[in-house]
Order: sequence, then C-alpha cells, then structure tokens
Amino acid sequence: MNDTINVGIIGGSGYTGGELMRLLLNHPYANVVAATSRRLAGKDICDTHTHLRGFLDMKFEDLSPDKIKDRCDVVFVAVPHGTSMNIVPQLLDGNTKVIDLSADYRLKTDVFEQVYNMRHTNPIDAVFGLVELHPEVTGEMFISNPGCYPTGAILSAAPLVAAGTVKSAIFDSKSGISGAGVNPSITSHYPNLAENIQAYKLTTHRHRAEIFQELNYLDNELTNISFTPHVIPSVRGILTTAHIFIKSIVSMDELRSIYTDFYKDKPFVRIIDGIPSLNAVRGSNFCDIGFEVDELNNRVVVVSAIDNLVKGASGQAIQNMNLMCGFDETEGLWMAAVAP
Amino acid sequence: MNDTINVGIIGGSGYTGGELMRLLLNHPYANVVAATSRRLAGKDICDTHTHLRGFLDMKFEDLSPDKIKDRCDVVFVAVPHGTSMNIVPQLLDGNTKVIDLSADYRLKTDVFEQVYNMRHTNPIDAVFGLVELHPEVTGEMFISNPGCYPTGAILSAAPLVAAGTVKSAIFDSKSGISGAGVNPSITSHYPNLAENIQAYKLTTHRHRAEIFQELNYLDNELTNISFTPHVIPSVRGILTTAHIFIKSIVSMDELRSIYTDFYKDKPFVRIIDGIPSLNAVRGSNFCDIGFEVDELNNRVVVVSAIDNLVKGASGQAIQNMNLMCGFDETEGLWMAAVAP
Amino acid sequence: MNDTINVGIIGGSGYTGGELMRLLLNHPYANVVAATSRRLAGKDICDTHTHLRGFLDMKFEDLSPDKIKDRCDVVFVAVPHGTSMNIVPQLLDGNTKVIDLSADYRLKTDVFEQVYNMRHTNPIDAVFGLVELHPEVTGEMFISNPGCYPTGAILSAAPLVAAGTVKSAIFDSKSGISGAGVNPSITSHYPNLAENIQAYKLTTHRHRAEIFQELNYLDNELTNISFTPHVIPSVRGILTTAHIFIKSIVSMDELRSIYTDFYKDKPFVRIIDGIPSLNAVRGSNFCDIGFEVDELNNRVVVVSAIDNLVKGASGQAIQNMNLMCGFDETEGLWMAAVAP
Amino acid sequence: MNDTINVGIIGGSGYTGGELMRLLLNHPYANVVAATSRRLAGKDICDTHTHLRGFLDMKFEDLSPDKIKDRCDVVFVAVPHGTSMNIVPQLLDGNTKVIDLSADYRLKTDVFEQVYNMRHTNPIDAVFGLVELHPEVTGEMFISNPGCYPTGAILSAAPLVAAGTVKSAIFDSKSGISGAGVNPSITSHYPNLAENIQAYKLTTHRHRAEIFQELNYLDNELTNISFTPHVIPSVRGILTTAHIFIKSIVSMDELRSIYTDFYKDKPFVRIIDGIPSLNAVRGSNFCDIGFEVDELNNRVVVVSAIDNLVKGASGQAIQNMNLMCGFDETEGLWMAAVAP
Repeated sequence: MNDTINVGIIGGSGYTGGELMRLLLNHPYANVVAATSRRLAGKDICDTHTHLRGFLDMKFEDLSPDKIKDRCDVVFVAVPHGTSMNIVPQLLDGNTKVIDLSADYRLKTDVFEQVYNMRHTNPIDAVFGLVELHPEVTGEMFISNPGCYPTGAILSAAPLVAAGTVKSAIFDSKSGISGAGVNPSITSHYPNLAENIQAYKLTTHRHRAEIFQELNYLDNELTNISFTPHVIPSVRGILTTAHIFIKSIVSMDELRSIYTDFYKDKPFVRIIDGIPSLNAVRGSNFCDIGFEVDELNNRVVVVSAIDNLVKGASGQAIQNMNLMCGFDETEGLWMAAVAP
Repeated sequence: MNDTINVGIIGGSGYTGGELMRLLLNHPYANVVAATSRRLAGKDICDTHTHLRGFLDMKFEDLSPDKIKDRCDVVFVAVPHGTSMNIVPQLLDGNTKVIDLSADYRLKTDVFEQVYNMRHTNPIDAVFGLVELHPEVTGEMFISNPGCYPTGAILSAAPLVAAGTVKSAIFDSKSGISGAGVNPSITSHYPNLAENIQAYKLTTHRHRAEIFQELNYLDNELTNISFTPHVIPSVRGILTTAHIFIKSIVSMDELRSIYTDFYKDKPFVRIIDGIPSLNAVRGSNFCDIGFEVDELNNRVVVVSAIDNLVKGASGQAIQNMNLMCGFDETEGLWMAAVAP
Repeated sequence: MNDTINVGIIGGSGYTGGELMRLLLNHPYANVVAATSRRLAGKDICDTHTHLRGFLDMKFEDLSPDKIKDRCDVVFVAVPHGTSMNIVPQLLDGNTKVIDLSADYRLKTDVFEQVYNMRHTNPIDAVFGLVELHPEVTGEMFISNPGCYPTGAILSAAPLVAAGTVKSAIFDSKSGISGAGVNPSITSHYPNLAENIQAYKLTTHRHRAEIFQELNYLDNELTNISFTPHVIPSVRGILTTAHIFIKSIVSMDELRSIYTDFYKDKPFVRIIDGIPSLNAVRGSNFCDIGFEVDELNNRVVVVSAIDNLVKGASGQAIQNMNLMCGFDETEGLWMAAVAP
Repeated sequence: MNDTINVGIIGGSGYTGGELMRLLLNHPYANVVAATSRRLAGKDICDTHTHLRGFLDMKFEDLSPDKIKDRCDVVFVAVPHGTSMNIVPQLLDGNTKVIDLSADYRLKTDVFEQVYNMRHTNPIDAVFGLVELHPEVTGEMFISNPGCYPTGAILSAAPLVAAGTVKSAIFDSKSGISGAGVNPSITSHYPNLAENIQAYKLTTHRHRAEIFQELNYLDNELTNISFTPHVIPSVRGILTTAHIFIKSIVSMDELRSIYTDFYKDKPFVRIIDGIPSLNAVRGSNFCDIGFEVDELNNRVVVVSAIDNLVKGASGQAIQNMNLMCGFDETEGLWMAAVAP
C-alpha cells in the first residue's frame, strides 16, 4: 500500500492540464491539490473543464512556483516552451518531483537554442521521459516529458534502429487537432479542417530534433531521418506511418520477434496483427504498433497509433510520475480506450 | 466490502456489449465471465473489441441461457427486440438477476405488440429501469433497460411533467450513429452521414411509446407528446431539445428549483447553467440538463445531453445492476467524460 | 440576349463574399469588377479565396460607396448588421441596384431596433427578398436579402400558413458552422464542434423576428411561432425540422397538393418524397422540402434543407439580382449540388 | 462552334457515374443520352443521384454494349476492374470513342495479370489518359483513365523525375472515402472512420504499379518507388505527400522553375506558394501542387491535392473526352471548387 501524494499542475486550463486532472481522478495514490491559471484564477475549474463537473470542487489559482511546491509532492508543468525554463528551476528544491511537459528540457541546450531559436536561460539536465527507452526515469526528481509526435515516431522505429538495421527513416505523421491547443486558430477553424487534411512544416517541424536525438542515441550511425506532420479532422490521436529503409530485408516473423522482444516488459506498447487505428487507443495510454515488409524497396512500413493527449502528453507524464514515485507503472492508467 | 459477482453478457459483439465490458472492467465487484456471440463463437473478444486488448483474455461463446445462468449472478441481454423475449424467461429462475437492454419488456404487452407489430410470446412484468424515476429497481430480479432516446427525453421533461404544468411537449432529438449498431448500412455510410444530418421516422419512431408511457405515468392528463429523431455526424451522444409548452409561465429561478429538487439525490443528473453539449458527457453515465424560458410562447426549452451507449444503454444497465445487487449506485460508473 | 452588367461586392473577404464570386463566375451576364475589403485592400483575392485561383485576377480594394457605385450596375453589400445601414443609403442613387445581405433592412424599423438593440440610423423600405413569397422583387432597385435560418424555416411552413391551417409552429433548425463566418471562435474550434451538436440562443435568436414577420404576413392570426437553432458538425447546410400544429388533420395527398401548388412556378423549391438531406443541396440554390403527418397530435412535420451560403445567402442574392435585372430567375444558378 | 455529341455511361449508379452526369450537365456540347445499371434498370436516375433532381429526367437502362454504342458518340465505362475488359472490345467499332475508368487497360497486360491476379481476356493497347503527360490522347478512339491515387502521385513527382534528378520516392497518400464506392462497408462505417485515419495495404496497393509505370516511363533508371495509402474522415479528395530523395540538392527557385515549366500549358495544374489543401480543389478538376526542400536529407517534399472523383476520375475522363473530340481541354470543366 502506497502513501498518498499531493499533486499540483502549473498551467491547468489547457487540454493537457485537463487531461492530467481527468486521469489523476482515477489514480489511487495521487490527489490534485492545486491547478494554476493566471487568466482564470478564482474561477471554478469545472467551468473550463466541463466534463469534470461533479468530480473536482476546486478553483484555478495564481500561484508562484514557491507556493505550489510547498503544497505538492509532484508538480506537472504544462506551459508553453520558453515559459517552462523560468519555472522549473524554482521548483527543483530536492523535495519536489517535477515533470515538465514543455519542450524546454527535451533537447541538449545547444540543439534547443538552434531549433527553438531562443536562448535557454536555465539549462538543467533532464531524463527524456519516454520510459520504454529510458528506464532510468525511476527514482528521478526531474523528468522532461516527450513531445507528442516524437512519442509515436520513436516507438515505431526504436526496435529496428536499436538492432542496427536502419539506413533511413521517413516519419509521415497525422495528428488530431487537439495538439494545437484550446485556443481557436485558422487551422482549428471547423470549416478549414473538416473534410480536409493539412500538411504543415513539411521539412522544418521542431519535433524532428527529438526524434533524431532518440534514434541517434539508439544507433549513432543513423542520421537520415525525415519528419513531416499533418493535421486531420480528428480531435485526438496521432497515427505515424514510418517508412523505414533497412540494410537487408527481414521476414515478418523476424520483425515480429524484434518488436515483441524490445517491448516485452512494456505494458503500454501493444504489438498487433494488422494495422493500428486511432479508435483502439483513444482516451488510453497505449501505443499500438503494426507493420508490413516491402521487399521490393527494402522498406518496412511501421504504423503506430497513440492518443496525443494521453500517451503523447498527460498519460505519459503520469507514467513518469509513477516510476519517479515508486508506484506501479500502470497505476491510474490501466484503462481501456473509449470505442467506438 | 461487497462480494464479487459473476456477470454474463448475451450478445457481446455489438456496441452495447463492448461498452458493458469496457465499463465492467472498472467495476470493483463485477467480473465478466461469459460473453456470447453465435457468429463469433470461439474467436477472441479483443479481435472484435480491439480497444480492450490487454484487458480481456476471453473468447466469445455460443451458450444457451441455461448454461450462462449457471455461471452468472447477473446476465445482461443485449440482443435485438423480438429475440430477447425468447431468452429472458429461461434466465429467470429466481437466482439470476437479469437486465434486458432490448425493447421487449419496456412497454405494456398490448402497446408493445402494436408499436413493434409483432406478437409478444412471453410477457413478463418488468420495472422500467430509469432509476431516477423508478427507485423500486432496488432489489429487483428483472429489469428492462430504457431505450436511448427515451432516457434523454424523459429526464429532460420529468420534473416539469411531475409538477403538473405541462400542456404538450415536442422532443426533437439528435443522435450519434452508434445507436444504429455495428453493422454498416446506407445511413452509417460515411459519405452519407458526414457533413449531413438525417431526420428519420419523423412521426413514427417506436421510442415515442416509451416516452409517452413514462411521462403519462408522471401526469396522466398529459397526452400531447411528439418525438422526432435525427442522426448527426457523431459517433456517440444524444442531444434532446425539448420544446415544452406549459400551463403558466415560470421564472428561471423556479425552473431551477423544480429541476434541482427533483434530481437532488440523483448522482448522474447534472443541472447546469448554460446549454449542455455532448462533449461533456462522452464516455460517461451523466445526463446534463440546461434550459431557458420563452415567455412569448409559454414555452420552456430544455436541452439534455447523454452518451447513448452509456447512460442511454450499457452504463444505465450497470446502474440498474448496482441497485439490484445492493451496491452503491455509482460503483464502476464514477468516471468523468473524455473531452475534448 | 441580355447586356452584361458590372457587379461590385462590398465586403468580399468573408464566406458570402467568396460565394458570390464563385457563383457569379458562372453567370453569363454578370462580371465582378470590384470587391472591397478594408483589411485586405491591395491583396490578391485568390490568396484569401484559394479555390478561385485561376478564375479571378483581381485585388481587394478599399472603395467608398460612391466609387463602387460609379463602376457597378449592381452592388451586393455583405457586411455585418449595423454597418450596412451606413453604406446602403449612399449607394441608392436611382441607377445602382443594391442587394443587402445584412439584417439591417429585413425588419420594420421598430422591430429591428428592438431585436438588434440598436438605433437604426437610416431606415429605408425594402422588399424582403425571399422571391418565392415576394415576386414584387422584379424590377426593384433595393432588396434586403433574407437571413439563412428564416429562408429554410419560412419556406418549410409557408404553404400551410398561407392556407390558414396553422395553430402554432416550432422551428428546430440545425446549421453548418459556415454561417458563423470566417473568423475562428470558441464555437467553430474543431475540438468543440466535431462529434458534437451545440444548441444556442434557445429562445432568443434574432432570426425568429424574420420568421414571425413573414409567416404573420401570410396569416395575421398566427402568432405562436418558436425558433431554436443548433450548429452541427457540418460546414454548409441548414436542416429545419418544423413541428407544425394544425387546426384539423390533413392527409398526405392534401399536404402534397398544398405544397406543390404553392411552389408550382418556383424553380428552386423541390417537393420530394421522403426526407430531405443536406447532401442533395450542397453548393446549390435549392430548397428541398419533405413532410409527414402525425395524426395523433394534429402535427405535421416538415423538413427543409438548404445550403446556407447559397439559397441561405449568396445564391438567393443572385436570384434577387436576376429578377431585379430582368434576367431569368435561374441564370447562373442552375447547377446541381455537389454530392457525395 | 462545335457539334453536340451523345454520351453514354455504362455503370451509372456509382459515384463516378453520378459525377460524370453532374459534370456533363455543364458541358456545352455533350448530352448524356443513356446510363446503364443492371440492378436499377427502369428506376429514375434521380432517385439514386438525388442531387441531380430537376436536371435529368431519365431512367437507368440495362443496355448491351451494342445498343449503347448505336446511340452514342462517346461511351464512358465506369464498372469494376475485370468487368470492363468484357465490355470495351464490343464498343470499339471505329466510330464510338471509349473512355474506360476501370483499371483493365492502364497497365501492360503482363503487369496487369500479375498485379490484379487474373487473366486478361481481351488485351488492347490504350493510351494512359493522364493528359498532362500524354498529349497523344488527342484524337484517340480509346483511352484508359488513370487511377485516383496515381493521378495525384504522378503529377506531384513528374517534373523532378523527368529532370532525371530523383533517386527514390515515397508516396504517402491520404484519400477521402468516396474512392471506396457507394456500397457500405466496414471501412466506410461512420463509427469506424470518423475521428480516425486508416492506413491500408501498406506495401501492396495495386495503384503502385501505375505510379511505377508512369514515372519509370519518364526516367527508366528510377525504380525505387514506394506507395502507402490511407483513408481519412473526408468524403472527397486525395492529398499526396511525396517524399522525394534527389541526387543533388535544388533551391526553391530551381524547384519552382522545374514545376512551372513542366506544367506551363496545363490548365488544371496549379503550382502554388504554400501547401495545398483539399478545400481548394473540392468539386473541381484541379491538381494543386506545393513543395519544400529538406537540405538536411536531400529530400524534396511535394504535396499534391486533387478531388478523387473529379481529377481523380470523372473530371479527368471528361478532359480526355474533350481532347479526343477536338474540344477545348477545359470545356465543361472550368469551374472553381466549392469552398468552404
């Protein structure tokens, strides 16, 4: 039996903040005791996250990092990149565990500064919290939570890359629009997105750097990595189609072995027969993976499906929290997707 | 602490069957021990309900009512109308609790025969399992679970009808397409439904009879009740716009009192400020209700929102099970909706 | 053979402006010679209306009413209500024909001021340009184009109302979101609208006044008229479900006669067997109408379907232009819907 | 001034048949005089294609090839692959022009037999009717109309391939579901497709052979060509993301020159700044193309957007007809897309 921990959320009004609350309501050992929003301070949380009515009787607060860390054992930081770096260092006092959902601590400082085109004012080393690749999350005090696209892309290719067989990889990803946040925009305007698909940042999306970092970490000879994102008419989910060119052809059986071995103790990765779809992971922390071999072109096509707000953000953050706190990895997260 | 019960599902391959399983996985005292499907007998349940992969290691079976009741304390019957009446009587042995999700036992026999245009071969009295109106569910052995449209429609109007103030009511309902089931049809064909809304059975939908029965039960002078359904481009959810003409005008404050009083101990009905939407109830057992007064026409417009597969079917069935078995009404159902 | 006319559009950057251009491109006698936008003056029109690339080589201009009327035989005013009243009077010089798509001239001045809660600074009498009811459009110099909801609602009920048989009518309308315009908003944010339906202004929508005015004009004893709008996950289209309570029951044959007689020379109204759907009118100027009789409640349910941007706005405006200019009513508008 | 021609459609009840009729209604020189459907013979065409009500007063017929060719100058064959090869030879009498929309005559016979896994019973040489690559369509009597995916894929890559600069190309395509036809299926079932994206035939889709044939025709050293299709929650449209690896890097200016030069007299290809989207081509015969250079990986990402039912099927077929008959290439097709 575990002790109960107090949890705070900095930046509680967005989709990842709301999703952290929804998921933590199911967690047997975690209590959300504070959620901040400068803009909505004093307002009922459930006026914003109306689906939580009846579950949370709390208001948003405008709390300094000092104040929130006094009340919390664990703090999630769910603010935009560039903002997080000014908050995280104030939270890290040796007692409070911190999970940063922004991009500020995912990349090496020099890479970050180049990719995000800004100075990093407070560099600190952090473990990249993709627990399937980084079991060293366990017991850490500070974790940087991966980006949504990198989560699906890296998991789709990691077993082959780790096996040293990959020559180049193209990740063609299709995301639901919730990844763009709660604020209305041209892209999220219903008439623009419905019945459409929008490719964007064809060659320049910042998440490529995370994908590169992690795959290159598994095989430092692999450098030819491309990434192109799209948004589709869907709220949640990222489907990544990974076109992976390999050094020598593998059979489906070998491929299956490589993937099931690599993920054998990873409860949230499901290797499936057939092709994953978003419907089987929506609302859940799973990453479903399926594949086919294209002998003609020495290509393996791997498809991964995640819920961008769960495994791609808040669920994965709680998975990190569980390991940091010594809980079972699946605590509070062992729920099936909602389908249809 | 409660004892654990064994649960069986007759007709496990459809959406309501899948939803019963998803929800019962969260129930602390219920174990699904059998799910039948004649067509899929012997097949892994998770090949059909792919979102349950990792949670259920079971196969569909082709079981007679006798066989399934031997293994179960509670049996849900999730088969089409006309089929259920040939199964239910074989299950009712005094030991097994039965919840029928079909239409076969919702209406008085003569009304059923007229509305469904078929003979009822096995009439049995059953409590209409809308627990907010029928607390007598508690302790019963056999419950007929309400239809999806009637659930949202009746709950939207019941407080006003019970107060004796209603002259006539028009229920204009908009449903997600999952209510039409797992089998592809002209209506559910994506090019036909996307970017569209399809009104159907403008004056003749069978669910009108349930709505009439229950509202007339609350006020036997009320007979002018109309119902027109639509399907919208949504998978889950029913929004009902109830146009209720009243005998004398009420204020918003009075209206609020009438509704909050009527539903004061009902955990799954939320009276809200503003107008309900499907997003706040998706995946959950809640019925959200909001309203406005139209003084000009002596009309009150009440809007209710439910998830048709949860409060409109499987969740409500489990709510019935809870009361029949002496569990807390919310056991296994106290989860927030998944939003966005 | 007709002479060619020059057409200008004040407010060309919105959806109705774009739709006017798309439709006028097909018109054999109308040339768009100017389109204004203060914000986008100097920019290529096709950078905004990307679907018109290759068809229009024009830039938005910032033109005064005086300037535009010098260049045009017909001017469409597609600006928000409250703005139009300051433009229209400057255009009306006896030579230029004007069609106002805003709400400023649809209602009697006192009604307008009450409903829109603002002073009318420039009242002028205008014909309400629903040509199926107002053939006197022909030859007029100034027409006020109807609102989108009123177009579908009025056409659904007019034949019965004109026959003097209606006791009360409830219009429950479901609209695509393009009616809310090109600017992103909370309501049009994809995660808020997808898989949802949003009722709004349950009892207070301003379009009720137009519906009332026109139906009351057909039968001045009819006053009990209710209207409740919804937005659905669709870009285009309005489906109106009219619940019409009648004085004495009619048969389907009588109903069919009433409707086909009333609309017998109206090329854009199609009385159909069965129930209309948005798919059959998308992109076109048609209003499809179908119905059923509910003998139990002395109710007729009439369903109408229009494309809100065509028959509900720009198409109808061109229909008005055709009659004002002596062209055939269908000129430039005689195109089938795009389906699926 | 051209003479009017009589046109017949074999297989008129599907989406491509309906789209041929919709588009030919706008054609100044073509009259549809016959449309066949064995199943619907004797039924009004507009009961099936309800959006054409008021435009066509014709019934489906069950006509032999002999009968239909007697009445027609041009016959479109819109039947499934494997069926067409038994019809086309009977139509080709030297007088009747034939455009086959099936796959039966797109590939060399041996390739066809291998890819479609069936014997070709009636091989005949046909020009591959992608007119942007095959101007020799002009004056032909028999044309094989390209597949929907190949149209978008080939057009996206052709200029670079023709320039001899391409090492390998991966086409990752996303299609609306109308490409799967009018018959409801598991894939087209709304709850399965909405809010989802479904990858399929990751490495084995038959359209790869057409893409290969045409690109290899432009550069016979190019063999490394991959194709993976997806269906998205959209009715119409195909967006193809072409990941093209090139021998040496090009600048954006060079790229622009290569594409604009290649397509300089092609009215239906629009090279755009920025990234194409389906909304700008829906309902029209355009192919929009945009691109970016990824210097890091010697990759060019080209995105093309078409309407699968128009440029990807029926529109392109009419474009072929125009050239075969000596009409202007754009006749009847020069319409803007319907947006939003």
